[in-house]
Amino acid sequence: MDLVAGIDIGGTKTKIGLVDCDGKSHEQLFFRTRDFDNLDHFLDRIVAGIEELKAKFGSDVNLIGCGIGAPNASSRKGTIENAANLKWKGSVPILAKLKQRIDVPMRIMNDASAAALGEMLFGNAKGMSDFIAITLGTGFGAGIVANGKLIEGYDGFAGELGHVDMTLGDGRLTGLNVRGGLEAYVSATGLKRTILYMLCKYLDESRFRGIAYNDLHGEDITKAAEEGDPIALKAFDYTADILGLAMANFTAFSQPEAFFLMGGLVNSGKWIMDPMKTYFENYLLEVYKGKVKILVSGMEGKTAAIAGAAALIWEGRQ
Amino acid sequence: MDLVAGIDIGGTKTKIGLVDCDGKSHEQLFFRTRDFDNLDHFLDRIVAGIEELKAKFGSDVNLIGCGIGAPNASSRKGTIENAANLKWKGSVPILAKLKQRIDVPMRIMNDASAAALGEMLFGNAKGMSDFIAITLGTGFGAGIVANGKLIEGYDGFAGELGHVDMTLGDGRLTGLNVRGGLEAYVSATGLKRTILYMLCKYLDESRFRGIAYNDLHGEDITKAAEEGDPIALKAFDYTADILGLAMANFTAFSQPEAFFLMGGLVNSGKWIMDPMKTYFENYLLEVYKGKVKILVSGMEGKTAAIAGAAALIWEGRQ
Repeated sequence: MDLVAGIDIGGTKTKIGLVDCDGKSHEQLFFRTRDFDNLDHFLDRIVAGIEELKAKFGSDVNLIGCGIGAPNASSRKGTIENAANLKWKGSVPILAKLKQRIDVPMRIMNDASAAALGEMLFGNAKGMSDFIAITLGTGFGAGIVANGKLIEGYDGFAGELGHVDMTLGDGRLTGLNVRGGLEAYVSATGLKRTILYMLCKYLDESRFRGIAYNDLHGEDITKAAEEGDPIALKAFDYTADILGLAMANFTAFSQPEAFFLMGGLVNSGKWIMDPMKTYFENYLLEVYKGKVKILVSGMEGKTAAIAGAAALIWEGRQ
Repeated sequence: MDLVAGIDIGGTKTKIGLVDCDGKSHEQLFFRTRDFDNLDHFLDRIVAGIEELKAKFGSDVNLIGCGIGAPNASSRKGTIENAANLKWKGSVPILAKLKQRIDVPMRIMNDASAAALGEMLFGNAKGMSDFIAITLGTGFGAGIVANGKLIEGYDGFAGELGHVDMTLGDGRLTGLNVRGGLEAYVSATGLKRTILYMLCKYLDESRFRGIAYNDLHGEDITKAAEEGDPIALKAFDYTADILGLAMANFTAFSQPEAFFLMGGLVNSGKWIMDPMKTYFENYLLEVYKGKVKILVSGMEGKTAAIAGAAALIWEGRQ
């Protein structure tokens, strides 16, 4: 059976799966990325992992390629560069080094772009030529498809929308030192920072007056909102407002048919997604109003990150 | 000789030219757009204009198509919709109506996107797959090319970057009622508004304290800057700053190899373009620094708007 090794390299975990042409991952495993300070040892672990999965699957695996999703990956250069949450610093030639170990077709791309491609091949974006996938997790990632093709950019770093400045250079710093960058507002971390902002701005009583920033967790904020905590409600509304504005801005760029939202924050549907839709429609230029769909990913529960990485190889071969 | 009628519909003038496969306009004419309240009369004037040009050129014209650049044009629908500076309101089916008069291949696109295509076929973007063309005139227009193709968007309205909000919804209104929209800052009109802002913010003596807004002209601002007027200098610096920031934001979207700048404000090179380059490089994410070129259009003096419109037909036929 023709299978692709889909490899998702995250700050915490690295996941590997054997993915068929329908996006189904037949076998998968994961290990902790941070256990490997040494890149060579990490790559050896990946190769051993693929062999384990092949053995588990049975004898008839035809491995037709490896697709990798990773933060700060350059699709054109095959590198990971200065990723904030990975240990290997500088420009890491990961594709060339992996190719020395397994000689199959390989492709790497930033994780959100891989997710977009997965959505197009296997998920709810099938048949769409123009859409944007947004991942709302610890950070803010985006993959943009226009004219039926992923926008990779001149040397493969397109789609860094978490670092778009929304404040004329006068706002919060992101992890990559962008002042006013979107990710500093719309992400799990951004939401926590907004709790601080609201505690500072308003005098409402709130459970968060008794919790230190370092002890603050996303689930607490959802729970507090459910109980009517005014600071939590204000923080969610502010986050929804900025996300809606950002998506209206992105629409002016490539006029997508739809946005696909995925990641942890999407689960706070009632508190972020629902009000965001109203803000978004309100901020849209007249010419776009009523035309842009906001959809959920069709990849949830399908080991989405692994399938997205595998889509890099399956693209054009299905 | 195979020629394309390139038609540029502007708020003030409509220009028509017969353009060859190298982007050279052999004959051209123009008339005032505003003289025509009635769309049918306007289209009749265009057809008559093309016939005049054919007659002037001689007997061997083979008209292979009409390309139209216009504000608020939808490339997918063949319409002009709610253009702020045109008299015909609502959704104007200009392509279908012109086709009833001349039966040749036709294509319409917003003027800045047509300019981008012209740059790719005939100008300084030859051979580039990823670039953004920005027109800085009365307004702010953009045409975005990624993967070697113009981004048109789901129904043909992509690239409205003048209406991207840069201020978390808390800034100046654009002509299309976008609060904080880029065009309200970076355009000929935006520069005039910035003079007011600087007169309000600072107490410096300035010639502009004696000139009413309605009497203010772009050339006066350039002249004042040359004479060291502190308000003019501050206004130019502010404009350059915001343009640099906006271009850094756009880079995070599609990572272009280059930006091409065209239009009136580009002539204020020393006052806007030079400081903008410093701001731009400074605002860029680390991963983009030193990689994005800022170039001037290779279309100036080539009846750029006409050639850009004609490029819509010449694309893929050269």
